[in-house]
Amino acid sequence: MPKIVNHDDRRKKIAKATWQVILNKGMEGATVRNIAGEAGLSLGALRHYFKTQDELLVYAMDLVKDRATKRVTAISKRDLPPKEMAIDILMEIVPTNAETRAEMEVWFAFVAYMKPKVKTESMLDDGVLKGVRLIIDLLSSTGCLRPNVDQCMEAERLYALIDGLAIHALMQPHRLSAEKIRETITYHIEQICDG
Amino acid sequence: MPKIVNHDDRRKKIAKATWQVILNKGMEGATVRNIAGEAGLSLGALRHYFKTQDELLVYAMDLVKDRATKRVTAISKRDLPPKEMAIDILMEIVPTNAETRAEMEVWFAFVAYMKPKVKTESMLDDGVLKGVRLIIDLLSSTGCLRPNVDQCMEAERLYALIDGLAIHALMQPHRLSAEKIRETITYHIEQICDG
Repeated sequence: MPKIVNHDDRRKKIAKATWQVILNKGMEGATVRNIAGEAGLSLGALRHYFKTQDELLVYAMDLVKDRATKRVTAISKRDLPPKEMAIDILMEIVPTNAETRAEMEVWFAFVAYMKPKVKTESMLDDGVLKGVRLIIDLLSSTGCLRPNVDQCMEAERLYALIDGLAIHALMQPHRLSAEKIRETITYHIEQICDG
Repeated sequence: MPKIVNHDDRRKKIAKATWQVILNKGMEGATVRNIAGEAGLSLGALRHYFKTQDELLVYAMDLVKDRATKRVTAISKRDLPPKEMAIDILMEIVPTNAETRAEMEVWFAFVAYMKPKVKTESMLDDGVLKGVRLIIDLLSSTGCLRPNVDQCMEAERLYALIDGLAIHALMQPHRLSAEKIRETITYHIEQICDG
């Protein structure tokens, strides 16, 4: 009886093997051969799912984005006051635990590797700018945002703050604890809101 | 007559060749062989100056830091009002022209490459946190900073904002012009200062 393979599961398994190889060996170790080895597949089986190394890397990174998007969506459905919801969502973007730190480490290595290869800036878009714009909209429409602030400027500022914290959380996990990150985000949200 | 070689100049020339190779080929192309080729030196001559690839990379990155430090020091000696000085110094940290963009691109690739190898966080310290603390001190001691703000929090926030803008300037140069970066930094400084 032929073995039934769920192709979507198989692709996800390969993507996770890719993350593991990047974490262990860095981007220069993320060869198709090493990834096949980590996934326990033959080179031929892997090539059945992904024709090129870049195709595999793009898929693996899209999966990182999907996971983050799902976490954010789950929070947005909770019944929370606007400022708390903003802080909780922003805390999902900054890596504060082993899982999200690994995701971001992989994303960081991927972006550094792909940067010289991509033709358009949007190919490396991680969706964070769109997310912070929605947060500023939420704070504004619920009357939390201080009146007379420049909303475009506030989105740009929050975007930079969050990605800066994300980089620092990744590079300096001992200096910057999850608690310190939440404190900094909360301070910022308090500063741009009334009260 | 033997040719007189200025060893310091030679090391700097090799460092610049290293940056060029990283810019052209990415970190995975930054082999001792490629760097020697770019510098117009034999492999043996290059090894006379740097015994290992990592030793060379660390030297090349220290030179990036030195150049940024010199630019910041030059501004700090100018006769400028505190807020303008703060903005001008911060604008030197964010890459806004071809030269500083190349420097940061090299730094970014270097950090992604070295991250799995280094044992202490401080090895990848770029001095920016120290710099923003001095800027908050300057704004505070000259009475520009709003009273009753948390200075530690303001340093952490400015640090994240600047490194976030730096990453965005590098990744999205078309979306984020030098003018837009100055506008964002000015907006932030105005928000944390009186008036």
